[in-house]
Amino acid sequence: MSSSVLESLVIPNTTKIVLLVMDGLGDLPNAEHQWQTPLEAARTPNFDALAPSSALGRLLPVQPGVTPGSGPGHLGLFGYDPVETTVGRGVLEALGAGMELKPGDVAARANFCTLGPDGIVTDRRAGRIPSETCAKLVAMLKEKAARFEDVDVILEPGKGHRFVAVLRGPGLGGEVSDADPHKEGKAIPAAHALVPGAANEKTARIINAFMQRAAEVLKNEAPANAALARGFSARPHFPGYRERFQLRAAAIAAYPMYRGVAQLAGMDLFVPGGETAADAIAVAREKWNDYDFFFLHVKGTDMAGEDGNFDMKKAVIESVDTALPQLLALHPDVLCMTGDHSTPTPVKGHSWHPVPALIHGKWCFADGFARFHEKHCRAGSFSGLASKDLMAVLLANAGRLDKYGA
Amino acid sequence: MSSSVLESLVIPNTTKIVLLVMDGLGDLPNAEHQWQTPLEAARTPNFDALAPSSALGRLLPVQPGVTPGSGPGHLGLFGYDPVETTVGRGVLEALGAGMELKPGDVAARANFCTLGPDGIVTDRRAGRIPSETCAKLVAMLKEKAARFEDVDVILEPGKGHRFVAVLRGPGLGGEVSDADPHKEGKAIPAAHALVPGAANEKTARIINAFMQRAAEVLKNEAPANAALARGFSARPHFPGYRERFQLRAAAIAAYPMYRGVAQLAGMDLFVPGGETAADAIAVAREKWNDYDFFFLHVKGTDMAGEDGNFDMKKAVIESVDTALPQLLALHPDVLCMTGDHSTPTPVKGHSWHPVPALIHGKWCFADGFARFHEKHCRAGSFSGLASKDLMAVLLANAGRLDKYGA
Repeated sequence: MSSSVLESLVIPNTTKIVLLVMDGLGDLPNAEHQWQTPLEAARTPNFDALAPSSALGRLLPVQPGVTPGSGPGHLGLFGYDPVETTVGRGVLEALGAGMELKPGDVAARANFCTLGPDGIVTDRRAGRIPSETCAKLVAMLKEKAARFEDVDVILEPGKGHRFVAVLRGPGLGGEVSDADPHKEGKAIPAAHALVPGAANEKTARIINAFMQRAAEVLKNEAPANAALARGFSARPHFPGYRERFQLRAAAIAAYPMYRGVAQLAGMDLFVPGGETAADAIAVAREKWNDYDFFFLHVKGTDMAGEDGNFDMKKAVIESVDTALPQLLALHPDVLCMTGDHSTPTPVKGHSWHPVPALIHGKWCFADGFARFHEKHCRAGSFSGLASKDLMAVLLANAGRLDKYGA
Repeated sequence: MSSSVLESLVIPNTTKIVLLVMDGLGDLPNAEHQWQTPLEAARTPNFDALAPSSALGRLLPVQPGVTPGSGPGHLGLFGYDPVETTVGRGVLEALGAGMELKPGDVAARANFCTLGPDGIVTDRRAGRIPSETCAKLVAMLKEKAARFEDVDVILEPGKGHRFVAVLRGPGLGGEVSDADPHKEGKAIPAAHALVPGAANEKTARIINAFMQRAAEVLKNEAPANAALARGFSARPHFPGYRERFQLRAAAIAAYPMYRGVAQLAGMDLFVPGGETAADAIAVAREKWNDYDFFFLHVKGTDMAGEDGNFDMKKAVIESVDTALPQLLALHPDVLCMTGDHSTPTPVKGHSWHPVPALIHGKWCFADGFARFHEKHCRAGSFSGLASKDLMAVLLANAGRLDKYGA
């Protein structure tokens, strides 16, 4: 079914939906931990109390065998096809840096480099300059390379030699080649339109002017005396939650990347006071009457997974369990707990494994399982559901979808 | 796989397939009934005897989260994609009223209304006149507004102010706007072609002539002195069972709507002597040698679900169980028992939940479960099968599909 048919079924209601994402939640049975997963090994009395009257399942983020990044992982959970709905690298980088992107903006990943006297790139990373130096150089560019024609160039320093550039002005396109030779020993190529048209040509022209000005501004600096830019992409424009689902949606996330993806889905953004589930839930409580849908993001599970730290992942899960009663006290009509992808501790990185998920609501189909973990989820009533179809199920459980056909 | 590829694999055989549909069969674990579903709570010795040597599964009628109406629900079971194969509202209304539709017919939902002296609709439902009055007014129209140009207008009275109109004649189109202002205080708009073309324009012309004649015929009546018509749609034309599957198919259903959808699939229609499974099975026995495929429809499960009546739903299921030996005595090669959608008693309406299904046949993959109910079906060997793919599985079990490729 096309999403437009789904959207044609959306009806208004006063019900409230909470999507609590424990980033990278899914894991593998660990040989060193009696073949348990962190979710299984964790002491979770509050999850356990909820489990029997909940539906369990495992979500497939993209397609079998495919490991999603955070962008596609969250886009899927938000009900967007993560293959059809692509978000460019520059845009993800800008969102991850906490930059606000407006419709029409074009973003790029950029970094400082070292140019030889003959204009040849001798070090693409300028000796991996410290972040403080990067911030100083970005400040210089902000002063002297901030506007070309009618376009503002907005810069944000990153870690080491990295920074992000956002172009904001009328008539820009995102299909532009990299101003980056991708290897040492070559000159910086001029950017050019990858698809003919005035918008892409304008972006290329602005970027080339910026690159030239940057080299002039930085020419007496060392080792970073020029800049490179790549991954140009326009802020994608797709209909948001209000338009698609008649939902006023709030995103509560400590890390900018996740607020950024939520921003693309048209959610209002909130920064909690800390990184725990309790911090996020406190914001939800404060905004409870103003929104219909709450996306709460907890990062710690993913970080522990990336570190291969079983005990840390278990501890983060237990902290979510401890905070859960505060969320349940708000009486959401539909609660879903899941992850955007798996980050198994033995893998020490994102993986392709389906992600355990729990849906609680009065019509959820109570699976009757004693606990919420990967193994019960495997046998649950929505095992194998595509992440992109989750929102339809949550809307249905919330009484927000009309019947299809007579 | 596209349906045309599937159809290219169909081979003839002498096997017989029975599809026994308990409308709205699927339900939820009920908190008030020890978390059992009606199918689980029912005493079903005959289902139980069949279950261990059957394959179990849960069918997805349309897509996750989407609640189907009866039309899409049955089209899916019959092997038609319920999203691609749409049936218009007028056509469903006509089928539900038991009207036979021929290729080329255009149907509409109609009702009597009250017009003020200035031609403004003052009551779209004419004070909700009783059905007897409706029948009397329809009889007047049948006499004096039955033919325009070379088109017959066939009318069937419904409940209260409602009736159905079918246009039958050469060169009619179904893409025509409503002759209905949809609210009081406005004049009746003339129908017009929504897509340009002689066929749609002819339908609009005929309908407008009918509307004018109806107002003349009814002008001295009160409160119903005019008619409205909406939901115009042409009888869809898609290949039937004989053409697609080389099956002589019989539909045995007490309610006209289900015979109607079966009619669209090219089945021959039979009205059983009553509403029970035993009544439907008696017809199947009588016609056993004349057909390869039998669709048997039992409505009671859906009605009990709509009423939220757990005990009644259980009782209807038990009556099907009691009748089952009569069906098994016919020795169908493949028997499938399922529903067109779920109508859970706590929801009191159709729902999006997958539908329990049982397939019995010598090659079905005996799942070995002790009973046939939602929870075993959740773990069964075809859990998550799309309803539209069921027919392929039944054909395969009946030895009616050739190998694909060498």
